[in-house]
Amino acid sequence: MILNPNEWPPKYDNEYFPSPRDRYWFKEMETMDPSRRDEIIFKKLKAQIAYAYERAPFYRNKWDEAGIHPNQVKTFEDFRKIPLVYKQEIREDQAKNPPFGSYLCIPREQVFRIHGSSGTTGKPTAFAIGRDDWDRIGNAHARIMWGFGLRPGDSLFIGSFFSLYLGSWGALAGGERLRLTCFPFGAGLPGQTLMALRWIKEIRPTAFYGTPSFALYLAERAREEGFDPLKDFNFKTMFFSGEPGAGIPATKRKIEESYNCKCIDLGTMAEMTPWMTNGECEFRTGMHLWMDIVYTELVDPETKKGVAYGKEGVPVYTHLERTSHPMIRLFSGDLATWTNEPCPCGRTYPRLPKGMYGRADDMFLVRGENVYPSGVEGALREVAGFGEEFRIIITREKTMDELLVQAEYNREVAAKAQANPQILGQLKQEMEDRLKARIGVRANVELVEFGKIERTQFKARRVIDKRDLYK
Amino acid sequence: MILNPNEWPPKYDNEYFPSPRDRYWFKEMETMDPSRRDEIIFKKLKAQIAYAYERAPFYRNKWDEAGIHPNQVKTFEDFRKIPLVYKQEIREDQAKNPPFGSYLCIPREQVFRIHGSSGTTGKPTAFAIGRDDWDRIGNAHARIMWGFGLRPGDSLFIGSFFSLYLGSWGALAGGERLRLTCFPFGAGLPGQTLMALRWIKEIRPTAFYGTPSFALYLAERAREEGFDPLKDFNFKTMFFSGEPGAGIPATKRKIEESYNCKCIDLGTMAEMTPWMTNGECEFRTGMHLWMDIVYTELVDPETKKGVAYGKEGVPVYTHLERTSHPMIRLFSGDLATWTNEPCPCGRTYPRLPKGMYGRADDMFLVRGENVYPSGVEGALREVAGFGEEFRIIITREKTMDELLVQAEYNREVAAKAQANPQILGQLKQEMEDRLKARIGVRANVELVEFGKIERTQFKARRVIDKRDLYK
Repeated sequence: MILNPNEWPPKYDNEYFPSPRDRYWFKEMETMDPSRRDEIIFKKLKAQIAYAYERAPFYRNKWDEAGIHPNQVKTFEDFRKIPLVYKQEIREDQAKNPPFGSYLCIPREQVFRIHGSSGTTGKPTAFAIGRDDWDRIGNAHARIMWGFGLRPGDSLFIGSFFSLYLGSWGALAGGERLRLTCFPFGAGLPGQTLMALRWIKEIRPTAFYGTPSFALYLAERAREEGFDPLKDFNFKTMFFSGEPGAGIPATKRKIEESYNCKCIDLGTMAEMTPWMTNGECEFRTGMHLWMDIVYTELVDPETKKGVAYGKEGVPVYTHLERTSHPMIRLFSGDLATWTNEPCPCGRTYPRLPKGMYGRADDMFLVRGENVYPSGVEGALREVAGFGEEFRIIITREKTMDELLVQAEYNREVAAKAQANPQILGQLKQEMEDRLKARIGVRANVELVEFGKIERTQFKARRVIDKRDLYK
Repeated sequence: MILNPNEWPPKYDNEYFPSPRDRYWFKEMETMDPSRRDEIIFKKLKAQIAYAYERAPFYRNKWDEAGIHPNQVKTFEDFRKIPLVYKQEIREDQAKNPPFGSYLCIPREQVFRIHGSSGTTGKPTAFAIGRDDWDRIGNAHARIMWGFGLRPGDSLFIGSFFSLYLGSWGALAGGERLRLTCFPFGAGLPGQTLMALRWIKEIRPTAFYGTPSFALYLAERAREEGFDPLKDFNFKTMFFSGEPGAGIPATKRKIEESYNCKCIDLGTMAEMTPWMTNGECEFRTGMHLWMDIVYTELVDPETKKGVAYGKEGVPVYTHLERTSHPMIRLFSGDLATWTNEPCPCGRTYPRLPKGMYGRADDMFLVRGENVYPSGVEGALREVAGFGEEFRIIITREKTMDELLVQAEYNREVAAKAQANPQILGQLKQEMEDRLKARIGVRANVELVEFGKIERTQFKARRVIDKRDLYK
């Protein structure tokens, strides 16, 4: 089944299913000669950029300034003249045009769902998604979930938080479209993990979505509580995003051995949702780039020019069927290599054989959240009593990330604390609250005296990551 | 518009909308003479009980034992011979027939969503909901949300936790069907309230769903943080379930004054979802009983016989369009009076003019969760080191419920603690974790020496509620 590429945006039939024995959701599209598929992709790309140019001042101004008009885009090479989009730009555009920025292409009252980033650099980003787009997200995810082996009748436990974070919601939208029995349990509250263990044993879901570190923590906690994940649980497929873990061979093996399951690595960026368009198939040979849903390039981190298969680069994403908040050439900042060597599944998409294994900037990931040192800094500087310098230390306690922030208090606090030592406890609490609110992740604050943290002339080495996350 | 009452289960048109100026979603049904509506309700009731008898061993056995067959039900009076269902029974049935009990009327692979109670008396209850039922829930909620004034173009902030708890999910299902802009933010993590304040100011949603105590806490926290809920926020309608607060005049007034909004009281039970079928209209004269969706009786707590309008009783609920987990005559345990006096809105449903203002048993509500003393007891008795007696003290700190559990430790712990005082901290932590996992609510545990809590010969007065929740 191939949708009419002249009809844009595409309309999917929500009742469509392949035969349960088919390996593919849209066989022809997934297995065709890439050059033929490129023709279809290019038609969608043309329609998408013409739409964005017409509706979004953000893109119109940006492209006018760069001297490129959608009409001039006649080849993929032309397309690569369109300037990249950086997260910082869309944040700034939203600040100038609150709340959704000048790249929202539908009337505000047609926004169906709002989600967001937790705002690691001061101002969070809002994601506005239209009803038809939400429907297409469900269809895309169902198709990719089918590709890694889920079928109607499977039951899906979602063990990640339901709030701003789009990961959980995207898994749910796909699970609903795929007619799975969805169990959106969530995560993150004290005591909830213990509760999860009992429910998983009781219901015996066949699939799991969450972060790799939580899955490992869950297995460990299960054994402590007298459960045997291999017998008491029934997960056949566990799929992940939010962290690179599921693509790291040692971590993947540990998850597969802990649960006797297939561990599937997925994920692009929240801005791009459907985020599963980087996604492994059941053979787990690295993430396929599902190019006819989200067009993906790999560019050199410095020159920003495309790199050849076999080389390392940064994925750059372009929506092909988005009417609400389209992203055109969004620079991800992740590092990956790519290949077009065949996969046993028969799909002809390029792949990221080692997943995404690093960052081209100073962002780091803690429990699935993107955190920038500048976000930590911003939160601390909001607190009266903060000194001047800080340091971030990330460790993995058992299998969960722990974020320690060493922060100086100023001399005024030091003086007051002599008479009233409680003031330090209050300051620590306030810093922790501000950090949680700003960066979206719980941090443990350790107060240190003013001047105790080393100053440097140039760039402070403020982040110490002890996790070996990318190894 | 009246659906064909001979077609059961009903199919709703998901594209249907009344004119935005209409007060009613289904005008004729909502305003007709009650005796005429009773004819329609009775047809649905007949179809529902015949369906349940045929598909559910739970009901078939129960009714056979009571000597009543659906064929014999020719009047509402006959219907009242069907035995009541108690929560304890459905828990026991699920324990015997895990995980969904013998009252699940669809094949397990057709279950679309799983939610649950947090299991306050040892074993949680699982709620299994089919896809068509989920669709009908959305339609019912949209209709009632329309009745209290929400319209497409409104934006809905959902400030309650997305997990087992059905309240948040039901509000979302209704909001989606009503084509609101839904912002499912959630609640409950440290730092999340501060984050909520910023997002609410930024997005300015026009509607809010959550618990009344959280809404009051949010207003207070907003003022502390330098926000003015009257100016910085834009809530016109705030609707609530999970606690009686929104029906208590003083609390309702406080919420309305804090936000300059209409405060709408709603809620039946999670088992009954669509839980909004007890629901106020924009005139806030007490909850209407939306009888053609869920048939509701009021019975005497002792005799279990129906009570007349004007009298106090316990609501008893019967689904009229449920194919997955139907509840037939579920005894709620809540206390209310009811009336058939007209409401200015013109709807001809009976009402609960004072909402639900008490309990007929020892259950209590903490932050929207049902908690039984027996659940607390069960959790403590799982902990090696627990002594013998305990006491539950509930307070409201500012506007949030606080649950304090005083628990004895045994003599063995007392002996060990002399050498190693840290053992008490560990015991407290373990008790708190078990309580959270079992009763779904965070409790603060205060350890006391063995024998210090008063023993009684008969029923221990184990719950001290300092909140005046029902005043």
